[in-house]
Amino acid sequence: MVLRLFPQPSVQLAAEEVYVDVSFPAGRVLSEEVPISEPDLPPKTRPYVIINMVASLDGKATVYGKAGSIGSLTDRTVMRTLRSQADAVMIGAGTLRSEKLRLDVPEYLSQARESRNLRPQPLAIIATGSGDLPLETNLLGSSPENLLILASPSTPEGEIAAFSAHASVEVLREEASAPRPDPAAALEILKRRYAVSVLVVEGGPTLIHSLVSNGLADELFLALAPRLLGGTKPSALTILEGRTLSPQISGLEIVSIHLSGDELFLRYTLRSAAGRSRAVGVR
Amino acid sequence: MVLRLFPQPSVQLAAEEVYVDVSFPAGRVLSEEVPISEPDLPPKTRPYVIINMVASLDGKATVYGKAGSIGSLTDRTVMRTLRSQADAVMIGAGTLRSEKLRLDVPEYLSQARESRNLRPQPLAIIATGSGDLPLETNLLGSSPENLLILASPSTPEGEIAAFSAHASVEVLREEASAPRPDPAAALEILKRRYAVSVLVVEGGPTLIHSLVSNGLADELFLALAPRLLGGTKPSALTILEGRTLSPQISGLEIVSIHLSGDELFLRYTLRSAAGRSRAVGVR
Repeated sequence: MVLRLFPQPSVQLAAEEVYVDVSFPAGRVLSEEVPISEPDLPPKTRPYVIINMVASLDGKATVYGKAGSIGSLTDRTVMRTLRSQADAVMIGAGTLRSEKLRLDVPEYLSQARESRNLRPQPLAIIATGSGDLPLETNLLGSSPENLLILASPSTPEGEIAAFSAHASVEVLREEASAPRPDPAAALEILKRRYAVSVLVVEGGPTLIHSLVSNGLADELFLALAPRLLGGTKPSALTILEGRTLSPQISGLEIVSIHLSGDELFLRYTLRSAAGRSRAVGVR
Repeated sequence: MVLRLFPQPSVQLAAEEVYVDVSFPAGRVLSEEVPISEPDLPPKTRPYVIINMVASLDGKATVYGKAGSIGSLTDRTVMRTLRSQADAVMIGAGTLRSEKLRLDVPEYLSQARESRNLRPQPLAIIATGSGDLPLETNLLGSSPENLLILASPSTPEGEIAAFSAHASVEVLREEASAPRPDPAAALEILKRRYAVSVLVVEGGPTLIHSLVSNGLADELFLALAPRLLGGTKPSALTILEGRTLSPQISGLEIVSIHLSGDELFLRYTLRSAAGRSRAVGVR
């Protein structure tokens, strides 16, 4: 069982009910509640971007290079519920290199997608610069017609040709700072060519940093596992790996808090807090 | 204002009231509540060790090498309340080198200390191996009779002599892995010679790692600031810097959750969860 602690009043939920009623942008959350704040307008030229990550109490999003073991079964359920609300799910290539994973949603979420007029499965998207992408061994459950590879001019042509057997491929301009697809260009083409309105990004930490530092992330869903992991790079990464953000992103607004056992599920919006007021709460 | 979200029922508090009623070991928390779990017996040969840290949502406990700017004014108030309940406050030398700080409590907390039969100010303790310790420039508000330096055989003799003008000094055996005071030896002497029953440790991340990895930490108080900072070592550190913990410390038990604005104040116990049951809650 899960206890939603905020917004008040508290309610008990099954794990499958967490985030089942969210809508984007944040603000029209939890229909039985007074809106927390007026939602910003959704972005027009890119998808609404939701980051979903799990971390330990000491801020580690990977242990021995992998993220898969940090969260609980509830975290996996919640992750799938979030995917079920999105048009697409994106990860960086490093995340796929580190472990076997799936980007689809299980059968029981099909009806929820249908009722939202979403395609049966979210589009699975993987961003790569190097082209080092173990699709056949590490990506489970995504069919070619539902898989999109975002590459860059650095990606070897042979790799791009090989990907075309497994997926749609887009070659985008590179980020100024690194030989990988520019995140703004990626989001623009996702919106325009693939009709992606809501995108869930599940890592890794370099891709998350790229999105956040470019002002392209709208919400953060953070599962906080009741664990201390330790470890150093590259074995242990935080949810955001890259230079100090400038200006630092402050004033995230907390939207909801759920507690399952000793694991916390936190939802924040990253959008400008200017001019907002909270209709409920303690401030 | 602060909202205590857990344990239920929720209550509103002033910032100065947060953690004012805690007792150690955890379990006899929040007098109006049913105990969350039976407390373990307090340790007999060392103090009960409480870690208090603030981190951003991306797990960073320092930005540009400093911790001071991450938390809010409420976090500072809460930090002082925790100090007011402890016999002593300890930090590592690196934390003192990085910024000016105080380890004492303000006047308004004197009466609370007196009613708990605690000395007027907590003993300020700084652990150093190198002896590089800018006491005169960076440590504010601690008088020599209330300051203890823990050094190791690696600490230059000249430095130890110089410290003696400012503080009590203990030279302890070194940790096996690094030329700095062994944490178990430090805690043992704090209990035996300085009558420290409750110790708050406020960083840095290397000292916290040393305590946690040696099984010497009892509780974690974590303030989670609603910010994303980015950054890499050594500018940005997590609350725990060192090798991957083995066995990884899992199953921390959440004791309480407070929300102030968008900042969370979380209290966990690190002690064995074996044989515990929770009298309230949702599990």
